Amino acid sequence: MKVGFIGLGRMGRAMASRILAAGHDLAVYNRTAAKADDLVARGATRAGTVAEAARHGGVTITMLENDRALSELAHGADGLIAAMAQGAIHVAMGTHSLSLVKALAAAHADAGQVMVGAPVMGRPPVAEAGQLGILAGGPEAAVATCAPLFEAMGRRTFAAGSEPAAAASAKIAVNMMLACAIEAMGEGFALAEKCGVAGATFLDILTDGLFAAPAYKTYGKIIADKAWLGEAGFTATTGLKDINLALAAGEAAGVPTPSVGVSRDRLISAIAKGLGDRDWTVMALEQARASGLED
Amino acid sequence: MKVGFIGLGRMGRAMASRILAAGHDLAVYNRTAAKADDLVARGATRAGTVAEAARHGGVTITMLENDRALSELAHGADGLIAAMAQGAIHVAMGTHSLSLVKALAAAHADAGQVMVGAPVMGRPPVAEAGQLGILAGGPEAAVATCAPLFEAMGRRTFAAGSEPAAAASAKIAVNMMLACAIEAMGEGFALAEKCGVAGATFLDILTDGLFAAPAYKTYGKIIADKAWLGEAGFTATTGLKDINLALAAGEAAGVPTPSVGVSRDRLISAIAKGLGDRDWTVMALEQARASGLED
Amino acid sequence: MKVGFIGLGRMGRAMASRILAAGHDLAVYNRTAAKADDLVARGATRAGTVAEAARHGGVTITMLENDRALSELAHGADGLIAAMAQGAIHVAMGTHSLSLVKALAAAHADAGQVMVGAPVMGRPPVAEAGQLGILAGGPEAAVATCAPLFEAMGRRTFAAGSEPAAAASAKIAVNMMLACAIEAMGEGFALAEKCGVAGATFLDILTDGLFAAPAYKTYGKIIADKAWLGEAGFTATTGLKDINLALAAGEAAGVPTPSVGVSRDRLISAIAKGLGDRDWTVMALEQARASGLED
Amino acid sequence: MKVGFIGLGRMGRAMASRILAAGHDLAVYNRTAAKADDLVARGATRAGTVAEAARHGGVTITMLENDRALSELAHGADGLIAAMAQGAIHVAMGTHSLSLVKALAAAHADAGQVMVGAPVMGRPPVAEAGQLGILAGGPEAAVATCAPLFEAMGRRTFAAGSEPAAAASAKIAVNMMLACAIEAMGEGFALAEKCGVAGATFLDILTDGLFAAPAYKTYGKIIADKAWLGEAGFTATTGLKDINLALAAGEAAGVPTPSVGVSRDRLISAIAKGLGDRDWTVMALEQARASGLED
Repeated sequence: MKVGFIGLGRMGRAMASRILAAGHDLAVYNRTAAKADDLVARGATRAGTVAEAARHGGVTITMLENDRALSELAHGADGLIAAMAQGAIHVAMGTHSLSLVKALAAAHADAGQVMVGAPVMGRPPVAEAGQLGILAGGPEAAVATCAPLFEAMGRRTFAAGSEPAAAASAKIAVNMMLACAIEAMGEGFALAEKCGVAGATFLDILTDGLFAAPAYKTYGKIIADKAWLGEAGFTATTGLKDINLALAAGEAAGVPTPSVGVSRDRLISAIAKGLGDRDWTVMALEQARASGLED
Repeated sequence: MKVGFIGLGRMGRAMASRILAAGHDLAVYNRTAAKADDLVARGATRAGTVAEAARHGGVTITMLENDRALSELAHGADGLIAAMAQGAIHVAMGTHSLSLVKALAAAHADAGQVMVGAPVMGRPPVAEAGQLGILAGGPEAAVATCAPLFEAMGRRTFAAGSEPAAAASAKIAVNMMLACAIEAMGEGFALAEKCGVAGATFLDILTDGLFAAPAYKTYGKIIADKAWLGEAGFTATTGLKDINLALAAGEAAGVPTPSVGVSRDRLISAIAKGLGDRDWTVMALEQARASGLED
Repeated sequence: MKVGFIGLGRMGRAMASRILAAGHDLAVYNRTAAKADDLVARGATRAGTVAEAARHGGVTITMLENDRALSELAHGADGLIAAMAQGAIHVAMGTHSLSLVKALAAAHADAGQVMVGAPVMGRPPVAEAGQLGILAGGPEAAVATCAPLFEAMGRRTFAAGSEPAAAASAKIAVNMMLACAIEAMGEGFALAEKCGVAGATFLDILTDGLFAAPAYKTYGKIIADKAWLGEAGFTATTGLKDINLALAAGEAAGVPTPSVGVSRDRLISAIAKGLGDRDWTVMALEQARASGLED
Repeated sequence: MKVGFIGLGRMGRAMASRILAAGHDLAVYNRTAAKADDLVARGATRAGTVAEAARHGGVTITMLENDRALSELAHGADGLIAAMAQGAIHVAMGTHSLSLVKALAAAHADAGQVMVGAPVMGRPPVAEAGQLGILAGGPEAAVATCAPLFEAMGRRTFAAGSEPAAAASAKIAVNMMLACAIEAMGEGFALAEKCGVAGATFLDILTDGLFAAPAYKTYGKIIADKAWLGEAGFTATTGLKDINLALAAGEAAGVPTPSVGVSRDRLISAIAKGLGDRDWTVMALEQARASGLED
């Protein structure tokens, strides 16, 4: 299958690499061209422009960091929409706002093209192992066309609705629930600690039973160890960006999200104190400070 | 081992039954005597009063529904404290407030006795199977003395600190985090649903990965099915009682708990609309209503 | 008119003094007897017990600091209820919980007596000037009987409903709105300050127009001056007590109060940092800290 | 003084009219030209383009509804910045986001021009009477130059800081505090009503003393009368726009704003139920619904 792939950050490279390894004919593009070198060495075609990547095959995947990056390369004379053929499919796999996804889906439809929203769950090592969870939203036939690609990249594909925006909302909702879980852990650990329960014990209690899940194990360990100032898996600033996507989605969909607001305030406090580039578990550090711990 | 057991509700009967089955010499007491019949038929001694149960052995377990019930039988001329021998151990296994647990621990100490706080995680079927999680807080020697009893009742015992109040705080913190998780699910499911993602799909997405834990599977299914008005596992009114324990604990320990406040408000709304005896996932129903769904 | 007055703190003394000055025949009681000396010197009768005060006339006023103080002297063989005559009126002028007021009103009714709830608005200097706002709730005839007393103590009496609990709820609601206003000021001043607007300027802007009211002028000035650690008019601990009355009232009445929860969390943080005996505008100090100001 | 005035909505016309009446030489521009007719009839010069208005004198005032409108006419070959002379002053009097105001101030500075931020407090009738409160932020000399114009339009000018963004933040902070006050009233009135206090009585209690200010009198009356579905002074949708300005300002300045989040959620709920074009006191209607009132 002939595929274009745009956006070769760490996630994008891992995903493109899986597609290539599955035997597809892949053209790759990245603004900083050097990031494509390794893929080209392994057989990918180097696209010199967005348009070249978009004309390579019937499917073009984008994996971009934010709305601005996707929006900029979608529009204009040399942009994705102008370059894609009638009937071609754009699979947007980054985490984007509902409003951008809706606008872009409409623009593709106007151009006789199809958009599939397919944000992913999983960090770079998961992507490298081809074990992502893929939330696919869009017309059934288009999603079916992309199935072999999703299989190359992911462990499982979820049929998240008939519109790209549905898939985007599911990803946003998962992320916002993760923020809520971290905030709740911050509150729970602070209470337990101030009452004489060691963090490691409380983590054990939580994750042995009711909360025996990766979200609690991964972030709970950072909190129990007070390792929030160590290497950041996901920064406070990025977390706030995702929370803002959730608040905007809630506003657009008519859904109040009070728990998410609590997380937002914690992150703003942390960032105000210069911790924007630390792991977003600094939410729990802020909670600890508000509890008279961790001056 | 000679043990007294006070409080034979569904949880208490299941727990006492496990102790009996493990071969211990058990005296049982319940205000409504008939609830002891089955245990007596299987070999337990019927205690006619709290004091009789308390004098049966060196350890007395209480498994009572709330602070009032425990407080009433602890004090007074015929009460637990008056009846227990010097050096005897009171194991309080219900979920009680920090303030009661601290006061009771002090009263036992004044009487030369020892208190262990050992609240449990698990519902009646789990108790019947001897698979409870037990959070034990108290002097190390006393906790060690109780170990055979905990083994009879539980799957695992967590050493939750050297004071009964520490164990109480851990239980309260777990419950409050559960309330937060239900509230967060309410927000996430409402957002996903209003954006075109089916509830069952969103549940699948959540519990396949980051949130693959009993808390999310159990309550998420009720929310995805909108089955909140069906049979209640844990009622809104009981949930609010537990949340109030958490807020009081937070106040006593100096820990603000904004996420918990959000859950509290949802439960108050649900109860105001006559849903106090429904499952506490009515929090998600309230969220749905606030989102213009489920009029 | 013959009146008993129980509770001679600074507010109580000021109120009793106004009644005496208006020519009524007053018996006064306080646990610490010396606080009555000045009133006795000016013509009041010294009551040696609660019962003596309660039997002095057809109306007994209580002005007590909290629920516990009122509850203790209401009940028992020597208590207020036992001592008051059939048809006599108890006017409770402290700020008490809905649940105590309701229970006490029922107990008085059982004893053939009448209870009027009449909490007041105003600090000691206002009471000394006879300028209190009085929120009177109870049977119309009983409120009318008390009118000359209210006129002696207050600037204005509001007919707050036919039950004492209605008056209590109005007082609680006013206090909780004051907490919300202080919290909102904390957020507004922090935003303005971090954007380059001087506190005094922002105070001027607020109180010149939309918010030209005592609540904003009084507390806004403390916040603008960052004088929260100076002399406390109303302490954080007392503020938290009042907020807890509001949360309990909301729970009893079925009214969620999310804004109040925000204030509660700020006060808990402030108290956790040792500021319990400072003015409750330390809420704004906590907000400043959470904004990266005022380390 | 020669002045250009752009943006002749109801507020803009009232403000321009006052400047004209004070004897200044005014050129007016509005996209829908007819809105200028009355001013032209009274002696204003009709500007056919933004650029014409901007070249009329050394000061150009804009009074536009939102960021988009201001942003669109500021930039481009025919825009405000291109047209204004070196050293000329742009006085932006609408309510705009911190980020736009900062960006525009920088763009004017790059062009050798000066920007003054001067948002106003007051509704159209207040503007017609020349009684606005004006929050002026910018270089002292530029603000002084504008003083005669501010005197023509307003009752009072507040020196809100040396940057236009400071003035914007003050306006945003006032608006957000108003939202908080309305939310707090919603909670207070619901509590009082459910406890038996009539809305009119509670309003009287509030506004006779602590809260004797326009914010509480105006909006409290709507809430007491449950007149939230009547004629809208300020709609829920506009309120949400202003709250979003506040949240964005808080994020940019590093100030968490939990109270504001509560108001936001109420407005989102109201809008989700089709009440976006009603008065923003529908916040209190949502609170009433969440309290089991007003189904």
